[in-house]
Amino acid sequence: MILLTPGPTEIPGESIEAMSRKAHHRTSEFRKAFTSVVENLHWLFKTKNDILVFASSGTGAMEASVVNLFSPGDRVLICSNGKFGKRFAEITKSYGLNVDIYAEGWGKAINPEMVNEMLKKDTKAVFLTHNETSTGVANDVKAVGRIVKENGSLFIVDTISGLGVMEFETDRWGVDVAVSGSQKGLMAPPGLSFVSLSEDAWESHRHARLPKYYFSFDSYKEKLETGQTPFTPAIPLIFSLEKSLDFIKKSGLENLFKKYSALADMTRERILKMGLELFAERPSSALTSVRSPQNISSRDIVEHMKRKGIVIAGGQGQFKETIFRIAHMGYIERKHIEMCMDALSSVIQNLV
Amino acid sequence: MILLTPGPTEIPGESIEAMSRKAHHRTSEFRKAFTSVVENLHWLFKTKNDILVFASSGTGAMEASVVNLFSPGDRVLICSNGKFGKRFAEITKSYGLNVDIYAEGWGKAINPEMVNEMLKKDTKAVFLTHNETSTGVANDVKAVGRIVKENGSLFIVDTISGLGVMEFETDRWGVDVAVSGSQKGLMAPPGLSFVSLSEDAWESHRHARLPKYYFSFDSYKEKLETGQTPFTPAIPLIFSLEKSLDFIKKSGLENLFKKYSALADMTRERILKMGLELFAERPSSALTSVRSPQNISSRDIVEHMKRKGIVIAGGQGQFKETIFRIAHMGYIERKHIEMCMDALSSVIQNLV
Repeated sequence: MILLTPGPTEIPGESIEAMSRKAHHRTSEFRKAFTSVVENLHWLFKTKNDILVFASSGTGAMEASVVNLFSPGDRVLICSNGKFGKRFAEITKSYGLNVDIYAEGWGKAINPEMVNEMLKKDTKAVFLTHNETSTGVANDVKAVGRIVKENGSLFIVDTISGLGVMEFETDRWGVDVAVSGSQKGLMAPPGLSFVSLSEDAWESHRHARLPKYYFSFDSYKEKLETGQTPFTPAIPLIFSLEKSLDFIKKSGLENLFKKYSALADMTRERILKMGLELFAERPSSALTSVRSPQNISSRDIVEHMKRKGIVIAGGQGQFKETIFRIAHMGYIERKHIEMCMDALSSVIQNLV
Repeated sequence: MILLTPGPTEIPGESIEAMSRKAHHRTSEFRKAFTSVVENLHWLFKTKNDILVFASSGTGAMEASVVNLFSPGDRVLICSNGKFGKRFAEITKSYGLNVDIYAEGWGKAINPEMVNEMLKKDTKAVFLTHNETSTGVANDVKAVGRIVKENGSLFIVDTISGLGVMEFETDRWGVDVAVSGSQKGLMAPPGLSFVSLSEDAWESHRHARLPKYYFSFDSYKEKLETGQTPFTPAIPLIFSLEKSLDFIKKSGLENLFKKYSALADMTRERILKMGLELFAERPSSALTSVRSPQNISSRDIVEHMKRKGIVIAGGQGQFKETIFRIAHMGYIERKHIEMCMDALSSVIQNLV
């Protein structure tokens, strides 16, 4: 069975084996692994900022970036062009922020000019999704960042499915809070999430009045210095991620970016040859989203692919049954994508 | 190396192997495992109530029990006789509740009569720790429950380190919210937490105005019916817990309770024979807390034990260096405790 879903992705054998390692979390063995993880995350995020690690899904870190930085009524701008942009809108509304939404169509990219137009003087922060997993659209973080910084607002970016797959420069692009997770480009199992925090983010944190406890940055920062977390960490996942990050470092980030980009090109070429239509404007190299042929539910395509041992994903939200998604990130090679395309071609022929 | 810490505990081989199982979470394979986990948790909690599963440390589920049930200013009574009772006080204060605290000495048990005295007519809920992991004290959940129910208050119990180790009856003892975690009596890795919710808890949830998102009960309840979670679950930990619960069920709950109780007796007998002093009033069968001999830091005892391949725990809070803790729960046998006691005897002789 091959996992070609936009998270969880295939992970290296060493990362699987590492989960069976036994340790208590208040020991030097664990501290060593945890410190290595944090160090390599700094390298991967391209940041000198603090990085905190949570035992939670990526959504937990998204919530952490909200509850730690704001007070009720703070004005924020959410750039939303898919399910995960929408999630930032839901979280900020749940916490009583004053939420402006730049809602772009699903499958379309966020237009930096529109962000510029919608920014107000008192916009305290802008939220953007790097790779919108629900549609396969990569937003232009660098261009939006420039505009956000000119306005003096905080810049919060969800790169849960972008990090490790496509170029991402936390510090150079002015990202105050970068949010990520373990189970996509990081090639580790799900259950860990991360935030990086700039000095401005910490400054905002000092005045933030929203209530918090489990995700309170202070507790994590305090323990960080000693290579620990305030609450029991998901130990096997940390050991696993340690190995995955070692692998990513050994592979070289630029090499991985090139590889994923080539796999994306190859996938799209084959998709078009099958007479299918691509869905995403400004497609990311993490995944390819494809329109299901008329009168065929993508649910059926996913199901038939699964019977052939290849797990891909259907759509989400209003595109649940009308698009399907093939990820080409994680611990995979060209041959996996070839197998996937051969299988897909046969499935489509049988279904049409 | 043997883990005799009050979480994480030793886990069965099958539970370790299960972590390497590969699956996407929106598939029938995962749903099957998840449904089996929830079913067996019902059996373990002894409840017909809903049980929700989070990707987080136990503290996440503690927070969930607060943010989902209350509104700012609600009066609650926290019974606190150690670090984890204190944690409930910290969480409820962070969220702006009107918090009464019955603070008992560390090492002492919560006195049900005192709970009765401190209850007020408008006390909306009482929080109690079943097994106070920091001191090894087991509180009388049944007796406190009777008093709480007479007052018409909600009863919220942290049984993170009690469940699966000692008698616990969610429904019969009137527990409205039982909070637990994967890495103690449940013999699985850390990273999963649970809550069970009575009808009264759900009713309170409907009127609760505290903000929440990641831990919002509604999202989990909605997905529960389809054997899923709203956010990506920690897949390997679910597969692991599935096997651990199978093992617990096969072992028989009463048999495990008896075994742990016998191991506790054996531990205490040996401790007293060494001339050491026990710390806990009303000791639980999950762990034994021991006073460090005068002028010897428990940190040194823990360190020397570790060199012999046995991981035990020091104290917490103000007892960090003056007590140490030996757990006798999880996937262990009599021989492990014997080895631990032999090693401890030698360590103490060398240090005194």
